[in-house]
Amino acid sequence: MKEININQLRDEIDSLDSQLVQLLAKRSKVTRQVGLYKTIKGVPVYVPARENELLAKRKKQAEALGVSPELVEDLLRRIMRESYQSQHKHYHCSNNDINKIVIFGGNGALGKAFVNMFRISGYTVEVVEKDDWDRVESVVVDADLVIISVPINVTSAVIESLPKLPDHCILADLTSIKDEPLTAMMEKHSGPVVGLHPMFGPDGSFVKQVVVVCDGRGSEHYKWLLDQITIWGCITYNSAPQEHDSAMQMIQIMRHFSTFVYGRNLQLENPDLDKLMAFSSPIYRLELAMVGRLFAQNAQLYTDIIFSSKQAIELLKHYINTYEDAVKMLESDDKEGFKKAFDEVSDWFGDYAVSFQKESKSLLLKANDQRSL
Amino acid sequence: MKEININQLRDEIDSLDSQLVQLLAKRSKVTRQVGLYKTIKGVPVYVPARENELLAKRKKQAEALGVSPELVEDLLRRIMRESYQSQHKHYHCSNNDINKIVIFGGNGALGKAFVNMFRISGYTVEVVEKDDWDRVESVVVDADLVIISVPINVTSAVIESLPKLPDHCILADLTSIKDEPLTAMMEKHSGPVVGLHPMFGPDGSFVKQVVVVCDGRGSEHYKWLLDQITIWGCITYNSAPQEHDSAMQMIQIMRHFSTFVYGRNLQLENPDLDKLMAFSSPIYRLELAMVGRLFAQNAQLYTDIIFSSKQAIELLKHYINTYEDAVKMLESDDKEGFKKAFDEVSDWFGDYAVSFQKESKSLLLKANDQRSL
Repeated sequence: MKEININQLRDEIDSLDSQLVQLLAKRSKVTRQVGLYKTIKGVPVYVPARENELLAKRKKQAEALGVSPELVEDLLRRIMRESYQSQHKHYHCSNNDINKIVIFGGNGALGKAFVNMFRISGYTVEVVEKDDWDRVESVVVDADLVIISVPINVTSAVIESLPKLPDHCILADLTSIKDEPLTAMMEKHSGPVVGLHPMFGPDGSFVKQVVVVCDGRGSEHYKWLLDQITIWGCITYNSAPQEHDSAMQMIQIMRHFSTFVYGRNLQLENPDLDKLMAFSSPIYRLELAMVGRLFAQNAQLYTDIIFSSKQAIELLKHYINTYEDAVKMLESDDKEGFKKAFDEVSDWFGDYAVSFQKESKSLLLKANDQRSL
Repeated sequence: MKEININQLRDEIDSLDSQLVQLLAKRSKVTRQVGLYKTIKGVPVYVPARENELLAKRKKQAEALGVSPELVEDLLRRIMRESYQSQHKHYHCSNNDINKIVIFGGNGALGKAFVNMFRISGYTVEVVEKDDWDRVESVVVDADLVIISVPINVTSAVIESLPKLPDHCILADLTSIKDEPLTAMMEKHSGPVVGLHPMFGPDGSFVKQVVVVCDGRGSEHYKWLLDQITIWGCITYNSAPQEHDSAMQMIQIMRHFSTFVYGRNLQLENPDLDKLMAFSSPIYRLELAMVGRLFAQNAQLYTDIIFSSKQAIELLKHYINTYEDAVKMLESDDKEGFKKAFDEVSDWFGDYAVSFQKESKSLLLKANDQRSL
């Protein structure tokens, strides 16, 4: 076998990687043009059909060239995320007749994100904060849309103390519970009312994110608002407020609470965290990260969310019962009972268990990609 | 403004993406050559310094060209993962003097993965399963390494019933607990003994994975084995067996158990899973996936792991207490107490909370990349 020159091979890799970076620079110039086109035409940022078509074509090419189609799909999805984020400095405005949007709490993290999105879509936005209460009547007098984005524990109180809004004005909120604020808005205002729950944090992009929509009244009048949200790349999902709230208790409060308790318990057991990290395989590292990340967040905000869902107390007590039952099986060495319970849960998850495994596997591999010594 | 031709822009994107796929095909040809070089020279697959150098160079170039350095890093890490997986059909053999390796349970999932890795590294491997017990003496008589990779609940029994091994033979195991099997191995065999815990499942690559090493005796004699594992790309981490086991209780058993209870509780509450999925933001979707994935696994295997750690019962009871304390704060509306506890946990996580947030953010974005309508 002929001698392999490792330095030459490494130079070749460097040259190919350099071409990759140049390719990305060229691609981002083109996608910025696409962004401009979408802004002018009012086409949504995220067009699933185009994305799927693009992926299918490249995966086919990859197979023909002996390159892993999964690799190509992962790379293109990551590249497209970047282009969604960077291709828009402006968005198409879905309703040029809107005179003014007022956002209560528009300096909060989520409020600020919406203020920015409305502004770069060509709307005039005014922000009202606590200290502005004396001038609030004059601010809302010519508003076409009022959005409440204040902490969850004062949402209803803020809605109740609103001055009279113009009859045609849309009243909306962004709270993570929907029944109570929607009821308060319906009582306060006789015009169009809609409850929104953006299912994402304030620090990411809006693309492919879900916004839950709970209709109050006058959907034909606030249709432009949902169109605007879709233009930003969001997916809207209609729901009854009670249905939304009970789903949220299940996935948000239960999960938040368990995560809190898990972290609290770790702190009380006080193991050597550095050692735990050194031992951690990707899955434990990721699970530890999912717990630890909660505690990087604002204690007040988090406490308010938990304490706003006292209806969840019964659910949390069920959870304790389930936990105790499982520990009892362990204590009494009831392996058969444990296996039976496991199988029942498997059946309940059905096809999701397998698709979850597939989905999380790709994420775990990514978690491992990030490892460096 | 001049009219934008969207079809022309899309053609340009398609052409650039096609060049990307061609680039990947070329790169994989070069990295296969690098793989061959590493096999011949016995260089480990994963060389952190080279990886970091390569990333640093490209991120610098990206910045100069106005491309996001994070994008370039994500893409290159994903490409490197692929090349680690595909560049090796063979590995360098760290010890050509080895006559034979015997793996008990070599047809199990993890055992099979090790059998394969040893074989493609040039070793002769023989597998012993339950039914082979009558010929076991003749199989081990000329073995240089015996590895026990049987279900956790029979590991010690299998070790105790081993026939006498050659004095120089290394005895090792791959069990996820280490104290009990290591003690059993030390009693059984007077030659070199080492306990290994590969902290990863059988279905992924070995690259960048942690293998915990618990020394029994004769580390100079089994050094080649650790070298071999490093050549495959693993990171070895030395630990005392008790230290390993108590860390595992904390991160593995506690976590497995909580996940089991969470899934069991969901099944008992029986919400509409399709609705939950529709509502789910990336973080809840990921958390639900981390729960659901457990139930795609083998009930027996999982039950055995849980029931092999009865010492964890006390830990699990502490967890219930912590949970009950938190529910009490909610019931008595003790917001201050809750916030104080939250802050204590934040302090305990220290810098990790922030780095976890950063790390999981990038994973959550990836989870969202995968969303398609």
